[in-house]
Amino acid sequence: MNISPLAPTEFSRMPDVKGVALKMFETRMVYKNRDDLLLAQFAKGTQVAGVFTQSKTCSAAVDWCKKHLATGHQARLLLVNAGNSNAFTGAAGERSVTSVFNHLAQKFKLKNSEIYTASTGVIGELLSADDLLNAVDANKFSTPENNFIGAANAIRTTDTFAKFSSRQVEIAGNSVTINAIAKGSGMIAPDMSTMLSFIFTDANISQPALQKILVAAVKPSFNAITVDSDTSTSDTVLLFATGQLDAPQINDSSAPELQDFVTAINELCLEMAQYIVRDGEGAQKFITVNIGGAVDDQAAHNIGMSIANSPLVKTAIAGEDANWGRIIMAIGKSGEQADRDLIEITIGGIKITQNGQVVKGYDEAPVTRHMQTQNIIIDVSMGLSDGQATVYTCDLTHGYITINADYRS
Amino acid sequence: MNISPLAPTEFSRMPDVKGVALKMFETRMVYKNRDDLLLAQFAKGTQVAGVFTQSKTCSAAVDWCKKHLATGHQARLLLVNAGNSNAFTGAAGERSVTSVFNHLAQKFKLKNSEIYTASTGVIGELLSADDLLNAVDANKFSTPENNFIGAANAIRTTDTFAKFSSRQVEIAGNSVTINAIAKGSGMIAPDMSTMLSFIFTDANISQPALQKILVAAVKPSFNAITVDSDTSTSDTVLLFATGQLDAPQINDSSAPELQDFVTAINELCLEMAQYIVRDGEGAQKFITVNIGGAVDDQAAHNIGMSIANSPLVKTAIAGEDANWGRIIMAIGKSGEQADRDLIEITIGGIKITQNGQVVKGYDEAPVTRHMQTQNIIIDVSMGLSDGQATVYTCDLTHGYITINADYRS
Repeated sequence: MNISPLAPTEFSRMPDVKGVALKMFETRMVYKNRDDLLLAQFAKGTQVAGVFTQSKTCSAAVDWCKKHLATGHQARLLLVNAGNSNAFTGAAGERSVTSVFNHLAQKFKLKNSEIYTASTGVIGELLSADDLLNAVDANKFSTPENNFIGAANAIRTTDTFAKFSSRQVEIAGNSVTINAIAKGSGMIAPDMSTMLSFIFTDANISQPALQKILVAAVKPSFNAITVDSDTSTSDTVLLFATGQLDAPQINDSSAPELQDFVTAINELCLEMAQYIVRDGEGAQKFITVNIGGAVDDQAAHNIGMSIANSPLVKTAIAGEDANWGRIIMAIGKSGEQADRDLIEITIGGIKITQNGQVVKGYDEAPVTRHMQTQNIIIDVSMGLSDGQATVYTCDLTHGYITINADYRS
Repeated sequence: MNISPLAPTEFSRMPDVKGVALKMFETRMVYKNRDDLLLAQFAKGTQVAGVFTQSKTCSAAVDWCKKHLATGHQARLLLVNAGNSNAFTGAAGERSVTSVFNHLAQKFKLKNSEIYTASTGVIGELLSADDLLNAVDANKFSTPENNFIGAANAIRTTDTFAKFSSRQVEIAGNSVTINAIAKGSGMIAPDMSTMLSFIFTDANISQPALQKILVAAVKPSFNAITVDSDTSTSDTVLLFATGQLDAPQINDSSAPELQDFVTAINELCLEMAQYIVRDGEGAQKFITVNIGGAVDDQAAHNIGMSIANSPLVKTAIAGEDANWGRIIMAIGKSGEQADRDLIEITIGGIKITQNGQVVKGYDEAPVTRHMQTQNIIIDVSMGLSDGQATVYTCDLTHGYITINADYRS
């Protein structure tokens, strides 16, 4: 598999996080000669916050995480397997997960509700509890422990690069580490494009505050990206705070001493989300859509997503075609309030439309030069009020069709 | 341009419709050596019903039609040009249309409000009123008058075949003719995929009744198709009833004597809508999605559209891959009520899932054979209530990318 042309060229170093122990295993269930199972153990008292897919046909793993988050907030174990999503496997799938949970709870002397899990890969094939537990019990692993880059590799399905990043911030004078890993946007038959991200910190923050910080961070990052408008059955973001810093617990998400921490979480979520777009199937261009002047922020988001999901906009960008008429179309179909005669469209910093028509003396040449670059920037001003949003996507290319239609032919 | 492999092999004969006079012109504004302007004149008293795009950035032509339909219901003239949508051309675009309307109103001794118009093609380029009116005034035309097939050809942009059909029905013992023409789903740089349909009848039916019949017919036909989820700025369906039959006007859309007429309108709308899907960009397969057992009909429609718009479902079908997991995903993302353990998926008549998992002893071979045919039928039973809907789409192929991305490279 070729690495995406949009892959970043530099990555963070990944330090250890106090209270997090990582082990990677090779189950050989789907993939061969690579780790495909991540087991993260957390220190006692680790708080967890989570955000999950809105899908009505979500996977068993998502159901379990939601249930555990509702009943208890301590996380002691995270188990992530790659290659089989165990989604839509019915009662047998449930039994398989229950069997894994019971075994791990006994092995590590934990409550079931302290175990979190995520599975991505094939839909509709039963996850073998035996294969998975045999790998864990054999306790053989090639990647050294506590290797966050190895962990990011172990959770990949058809990602073309491992996704990870790190921040060091201060909370009330104490240095805190935050590590994030993610996977998403690759695809093999018959897999789902699925997004996972896990964030680990040694900060000492209560679960309700952590949950608030995560929900706020996910909105302009993971919830502001789209590759192909198809929502997975398994999307999961979990934030674990081990509290291993020798500092009092903070219970208020808006406490002034958390300011840098919140900024770092926001940055990491955005970085992971953009990595996923940069690994979008067949992607050749990274597209930023900025909407301003909408009636409110939600309307701006919906207009941005209407543009970012439009096959006609995305194919035009793939063809390096400054086809702004398709952006007008996508604004119009969003269902959000719009006044044709107030819309301003700017591409690559060059204003194209104003007062409901193309600007006087519009010269397409510099816009076309921008379209030939790898980072496309579209600014839309609705001219109605001050609602704004930014969303990210990639172009729609022959590569997407090849990945998703051609593999069986 | 190659004719779509899904084009029908047989078409209706197209008789005259009393009270409708058709003329086709060659304006040479965009296309050469073909008619690209349709002028339909209607007998005095012709009633008109219309349904238009919901786009908030709709074209000037759509704005005019909506305005005329709101103020007066008599139609005496329909003008349709192909190749330039005159959308997003601001005040200059408005002036151009006004100038055309004023000239035609004077020439034919009509009120402006009795003229209906539709334009499809390039967005953002000003329509030349002079070029258009010169063609009309020169009064030279190659295609014989009252040729509905010639009219269907004149309104094409990048359609690969002309779309038309006809029905003869009885209303209270009188034979009535209904002719329908349509265009849609082709595309050239930088055109919009745009759908138009015009239906002509000599029946004598009042405008409110006609409007009710049309709105009801559009719902399961034009509003139940999707090629690429992108809504045009110019979509228009107009139904003209000249009332030239020597019979009393019918004012009640549910009058028993209208039963066959209503059925014929429904059939023609569905036929035109399916023609458009059959001419979908790059389409190789015609897909019917039947949803049953949803909480209500609207929910069933939304679930059907979620499946029919899913790039992953459409690429799987292009790849002749019986990838039912992607259908589960599309149901889940629709936002409509779903119980994973009640969903039944049937493809080509073969049941695949039941009780939240794949059926015992599922054999993919016959489903794969169905996937290799040209007409794919997907049945989904939600098992919740009796809401049902059927939607139509085509597959997503390299042809779509080539048409929409490659033409400038």
